[in-house]
Amino acid sequence: MSTAGSNPASVTVGPIAGSTKEYIEFGDGIGVPVRRVHLTDGEHLDLYDTSGPYTDPEADIDLRAGLPRLRESWSADRWDGTQLDAARAGIITAEMRYCALREGVAAEVVREEVAAGRAVIPANHRHLELEPMIIGKAFAVKVNANIGNSAVTSSIDEEVEKMVWATRWGADTIMDLSTGKNIHDTREWILRNSPVPVGTVPIYQALEKVNGDPTALTWEIYRDTVIEQCEQGVDYMTVHAGVLLRYVPLTAQRVTGIVSRGGSIMAAWCLAHHRESFLYTHFEELCEILRRYDVTFSLGDGLRPGSIADANDEAQFAELRTLGELTRIAKSHGVQVMIEGPGHVPMHKIVENVRLEEELCEEAPFYTLGPLATDIAPAYDHITSAIGAAMIAQAGTAMLCYVTPKEHLGLPNRDDVKTGVITYKIAAHAADLAKQHPRAQERDDALSRARFDFRWHDQFALSLDPDTAREFHDETLPAEPAKSAHFCSMCGPKFCSMRISADVRQYAAEHGLDSAEAIEAGMAGKAAEFTEARSRVYLPLDSLTRTADR
Amino acid sequence: MSTAGSNPASVTVGPIAGSTKEYIEFGDGIGVPVRRVHLTDGEHLDLYDTSGPYTDPEADIDLRAGLPRLRESWSADRWDGTQLDAARAGIITAEMRYCALREGVAAEVVREEVAAGRAVIPANHRHLELEPMIIGKAFAVKVNANIGNSAVTSSIDEEVEKMVWATRWGADTIMDLSTGKNIHDTREWILRNSPVPVGTVPIYQALEKVNGDPTALTWEIYRDTVIEQCEQGVDYMTVHAGVLLRYVPLTAQRVTGIVSRGGSIMAAWCLAHHRESFLYTHFEELCEILRRYDVTFSLGDGLRPGSIADANDEAQFAELRTLGELTRIAKSHGVQVMIEGPGHVPMHKIVENVRLEEELCEEAPFYTLGPLATDIAPAYDHITSAIGAAMIAQAGTAMLCYVTPKEHLGLPNRDDVKTGVITYKIAAHAADLAKQHPRAQERDDALSRARFDFRWHDQFALSLDPDTAREFHDETLPAEPAKSAHFCSMCGPKFCSMRISADVRQYAAEHGLDSAEAIEAGMAGKAAEFTEARSRVYLPLDSLTRTADR
Repeated sequence: MSTAGSNPASVTVGPIAGSTKEYIEFGDGIGVPVRRVHLTDGEHLDLYDTSGPYTDPEADIDLRAGLPRLRESWSADRWDGTQLDAARAGIITAEMRYCALREGVAAEVVREEVAAGRAVIPANHRHLELEPMIIGKAFAVKVNANIGNSAVTSSIDEEVEKMVWATRWGADTIMDLSTGKNIHDTREWILRNSPVPVGTVPIYQALEKVNGDPTALTWEIYRDTVIEQCEQGVDYMTVHAGVLLRYVPLTAQRVTGIVSRGGSIMAAWCLAHHRESFLYTHFEELCEILRRYDVTFSLGDGLRPGSIADANDEAQFAELRTLGELTRIAKSHGVQVMIEGPGHVPMHKIVENVRLEEELCEEAPFYTLGPLATDIAPAYDHITSAIGAAMIAQAGTAMLCYVTPKEHLGLPNRDDVKTGVITYKIAAHAADLAKQHPRAQERDDALSRARFDFRWHDQFALSLDPDTAREFHDETLPAEPAKSAHFCSMCGPKFCSMRISADVRQYAAEHGLDSAEAIEAGMAGKAAEFTEARSRVYLPLDSLTRTADR
Repeated sequence: MSTAGSNPASVTVGPIAGSTKEYIEFGDGIGVPVRRVHLTDGEHLDLYDTSGPYTDPEADIDLRAGLPRLRESWSADRWDGTQLDAARAGIITAEMRYCALREGVAAEVVREEVAAGRAVIPANHRHLELEPMIIGKAFAVKVNANIGNSAVTSSIDEEVEKMVWATRWGADTIMDLSTGKNIHDTREWILRNSPVPVGTVPIYQALEKVNGDPTALTWEIYRDTVIEQCEQGVDYMTVHAGVLLRYVPLTAQRVTGIVSRGGSIMAAWCLAHHRESFLYTHFEELCEILRRYDVTFSLGDGLRPGSIADANDEAQFAELRTLGELTRIAKSHGVQVMIEGPGHVPMHKIVENVRLEEELCEEAPFYTLGPLATDIAPAYDHITSAIGAAMIAQAGTAMLCYVTPKEHLGLPNRDDVKTGVITYKIAAHAADLAKQHPRAQERDDALSRARFDFRWHDQFALSLDPDTAREFHDETLPAEPAKSAHFCSMCGPKFCSMRISADVRQYAAEHGLDSAEAIEAGMAGKAAEFTEARSRVYLPLDSLTRTADR
């Protein structure tokens, strides 16, 4: 791992430990990227890869020039409409084929899911650097990482690095939530260098244009901001068009009122003007703009609950009904749609969110922020929310917006971004396992076999975070021989349950004792043999013992 | 927070930030401890407290003398049988009353649950320093922390501090899994200074007595070890009596074989001698020993799955059926029983574990290790397992055994112990909320109200970890006035959704707009008023903006 120092900004480049970057051809010289984990037994496992060219040592990274315009070369397959239009017309686009290969499914499955509105491929015609990906419950659960600068806390350089860093660890999309002075330029740098879809919340930039006064917003200012962002190549946009004037009072008795920035901005505007939200009244015009670029709607949940007490209340579900209405309008314009979800929800109220979303919004992909399963652990909200995220993804949520340890307390730094992404990859993968996604368990099995065989290098390489796994191991057993030793620091060599277990397996295999019947019938007289066998295997070492297990 | 330097070992003493230690009287001069959180509005909230006298500045902590023998003074109420016997006889013991007050329920509820075998009160007659607690699905979900020394990695001093440290952050019980030379003395120091129940796995010490050779174990050596530990005051013991000879071959085809140390020791013994486990054949004698001290069985799951691939397999459930049989035997001897559970289980297979355990083991309290919802995140297994733990607790598990970030990689240090405990308090509390445990949401609501009102000190004080919450906040806004400022570093003062929301509430209250009907009817003409009101409220500051939200 090093940094590309010759560039105006330094970003993290180089392969992930134990892996190489490979490309699987799908014709026309286009390769779908994979992270290939090389195992010590000569085998390898290819994993879904979100990191773009940055993990490819052969790639020439030049942030000023931006990434290669991958999709430009697909001109034979270029489609000027939306992915939704194509899918409905029975056309399999290059983007669909690319997604299918990444997911390991037939392209026709991708087309069908997009046509039904159950999946989206956020891919602005002008974001040519994009490696397309698909969001839908039939596919692997995705993770979004929020980044974005502010006037005082971060530079453009840092935000580009945060994007590279987040995608290195598995972020499938990023949202640029920048505010402050350099909002347009920051987004331009991110877009030209981002291999993943970039989402925004245009109301933030619109608000900057009126010096931060929500009541001074107008449809025209908002519309021009959306067009500006579409032209740059933003792939999906959060639009809080479901915050209607009549819903605002429903929040008055809440414990935590309105916690969405977009939601509170629109609520303030509606109350101040006593008029219906311009996002709602101009929604069809907005559809026509997004359609031209194939920008995907992410219909925002401006009235999402900000506390356990407010979960699943009337304000939240009233807005969700309106989002269902807007979903149908957007799709009638050929615009792809996903729906944002909560927030803070206790476990027993999580599934109801998915059920209602699917019912009201025609199964449009659900994209949730956590939800946090309790309010009482600030500084650990990546964990409180990973619990809710895993459960809501199991129930059918297609993409999870990460939460970092700094949630509610401060701005995430680089370490927080990594912790947030890894934590959410855990939640997403746990859900893929629970949904019995075809290839999900391959990685668990490969890692568990490596663990049982004491192949430490393979365990690290197969991990979500090989660097930290190795670092933790090396705290107690740093020497290189310990990486192939048939024990670890928890038990030491004498008590190792894994070794006793391996002996059991070997002994059973050698004596045909692979069933309860066989052992009942055939064990007599063989006991002494086993005793002798294991006394040869175990060394009389007594150097390390364990406390971690029971 | 300081350390008691005059003692042979230094342990962490002093109140948790923002709280004081208080005692609620229940007669006879006995006080049940609470952590009283003092809020800036003059109110307070009392929380369940596991930390013992160490957080009481008035307490005289002398590790050589041990904690005061709290239960000795309850002589009028002393009961020589087991809590199970008493409960069945309709007797409410002092321990039951103590537990009832801690849980906020009627003592009769405690008695009924114990009598039914659905709850246990692990309280060895000889552990007089204990502050009794109850484990059962009708009560708050509990958390166990594993500690224990080894020959090279830790001293007795460190283990006593780990116990104090773990209970400071909320561990309800601790298990001393010490191995190596000083196993008896280490346990003595821990027991004499522990306010929470102490569990052990006696087979570990028995194995030390035969120099680590499982095949050299005998019933007599094991029995004497159990008696030695009963005499010292151990409150509950893990016994892997369900690992039967005929089950061992069922593990031969597993991905990760037998991962429980106790399970693998007994499997090796059974195979080597080709005889049934002495733990099983002598189980009734064992019951008679434990009964004399009222030591609770924690029937170990020696064949628990060590990987996603092995979850819910025949080996695991065959053992569970035997644990059901042993549960009935133990209860017929008046011995309290809980049942240990997995391990590694994908989310969709979690609930089945609880259902089967309850069916086969007469709803004896379930005590699970995680389970980890995926195998692919070594270094983050506190998180992979917190997801499984929250779900299995929601389904009815009574106590969760923590997992630290070092699981599978090395020995947990002090920081890992804290991270493990806090993470598991999150899982336990999330489950309490989902089960709608009567008092659980009080704390969430109090913290969320504090968050909405920008009472930062109260947010910290109500947190599971006030120190880290404050530290994270202070990274961006360290100055004291920021603790009462009506904004935070994520948005800064200009964009704060919480403030807009508070304005909405105030405006609605002032104008009777607390319903959708009211706003439809009455808002006309009031828009300008609101605009003016909020322009007075907001300051034209532009110093900080957010990236954390959308």
